[in-house]
Amino acid sequence: MGKPYILLTNDDGVDAPGLLALKKAIEPLGEIAILAPDHNWSAAGHPRTMHKPLRVEEVRLADGSIAYASNGAPSDCVALAVLGFFPKRPDLVVSGINLGGNMGYDVTYSGTVAAAIEAAIFGIPAIAVSLDTFSPDADYSAAAEFAARLAEYVLEKGLPPHAFLNVNVPAIPKEQIKGVQVTRLGKRFYEDQLIKRQDPRGKDYYWLGGGPPKDILEEGTDVGAVARGFISVTPLHLDMTDYKLLEALRSWEIFRE
Amino acid sequence: MGKPYILLTNDDGVDAPGLLALKKAIEPLGEIAILAPDHNWSAAGHPRTMHKPLRVEEVRLADGSIAYASNGAPSDCVALAVLGFFPKRPDLVVSGINLGGNMGYDVTYSGTVAAAIEAAIFGIPAIAVSLDTFSPDADYSAAAEFAARLAEYVLEKGLPPHAFLNVNVPAIPKEQIKGVQVTRLGKRFYEDQLIKRQDPRGKDYYWLGGGPPKDILEEGTDVGAVARGFISVTPLHLDMTDYKLLEALRSWEIFRE
Repeated sequence: MGKPYILLTNDDGVDAPGLLALKKAIEPLGEIAILAPDHNWSAAGHPRTMHKPLRVEEVRLADGSIAYASNGAPSDCVALAVLGFFPKRPDLVVSGINLGGNMGYDVTYSGTVAAAIEAAIFGIPAIAVSLDTFSPDADYSAAAEFAARLAEYVLEKGLPPHAFLNVNVPAIPKEQIKGVQVTRLGKRFYEDQLIKRQDPRGKDYYWLGGGPPKDILEEGTDVGAVARGFISVTPLHLDMTDYKLLEALRSWEIFRE
Repeated sequence: MGKPYILLTNDDGVDAPGLLALKKAIEPLGEIAILAPDHNWSAAGHPRTMHKPLRVEEVRLADGSIAYASNGAPSDCVALAVLGFFPKRPDLVVSGINLGGNMGYDVTYSGTVAAAIEAAIFGIPAIAVSLDTFSPDADYSAAAEFAARLAEYVLEKGLPPHAFLNVNVPAIPKEQIKGVQVTRLGKRFYEDQLIKRQDPRGKDYYWLGGGPPKDILEEGTDVGAVARGFISVTPLHLDMTDYKLLEALRSWEIFRE
């Protein structure tokens, strides 16, 4: 095998500083291709753009290097890249570094994670990386450095088919990070409220909004690890089957006819 | 407990015949509230609309009954309903009946399933129902009848917190349906292609497209059951953690520092 071919994408948009930090850290590992959204897709879920044509523009990152920007979602960017926009199929997809953690149930909404899910569907190893802060002055260096180290391991050891790694990094100075924990998905609850307002014409409209999430900081979970100052690596897969419930359902009469 | 309060939604839009069929079948079980998208959201994933205000309009279904239509996604409709648009929190959310199966990896894209995921995040039992055809003349009666029977069971027995049921019904005459199987998620692969075209100004654009999915028809899976003429009920949960990989990762040096 020659140099690994690594696709980078994100959901904050191609000009986000987290993507540039990721690129600089991962560059030494192989040949890098960047295809990312031309705008921010936060909380966009895992859409597949089928009803509108996708555009791809060549752009330049802040370091002068060439990247590609698409009007599609992060998952579309991965599909474009894998299905032939670039001359080679990627050996690894890394998505991020997202501004804002993606833990617990966040993974069902997150565009950063959706890009990794899309790669996993194609059977390509993937890593999603998020930094647990919304500060625009965020320092991505610890997250980028760890992402590069982890990417090196994944390139060497591989991942089981259709599995991927979801990484969350606490936004604290590098020397204060206590280590790395392998975790399961934790519980993060948003106490969203329905806010009802009236427009100038007197018609109602609504916002779904709320404060920061309430995390249940159990030992061994992503939210627990990050809250305690650890980098969290959660192995995820696409099989959402609840096998325990599957067995329990067999006793329901409706399934025994 | 009084009459159960049941929320219906879908992703084909409030005026889709699958929603009306579902409503007619489920009506006898309790008090019904309908809040569904005002347009089709197919393959929209699980977005959370945060950057634009949500509107809700009162509309009338083809049977003259009142329903509500929102410009939000199916998951937004569930959040609106649960967070207070209606006077009561639903006891059960049923999403569908979708025109088109949602099996295997489809569940990561599906708006029908995303509505059930949103309900499960709120801790409300949910059922997603899909009919495995894209024919506009689809007959929803068998799917609607089964959805109502299953809803009755779920109202009586409950589901574990944050779990939900994903139902797929084969599009064959009712008398040919062989029964019901409790299944796990199967493997469904789309052989999508990247189609490159040029617009009238000579600029490239792309479609992600392909033919029908290739299913691996394993025994015990949703795709396998439906292909053999069974109704498939797959219990799903929100914990995408790959516990087997979690154990395997512990041996990686990067996690033992």
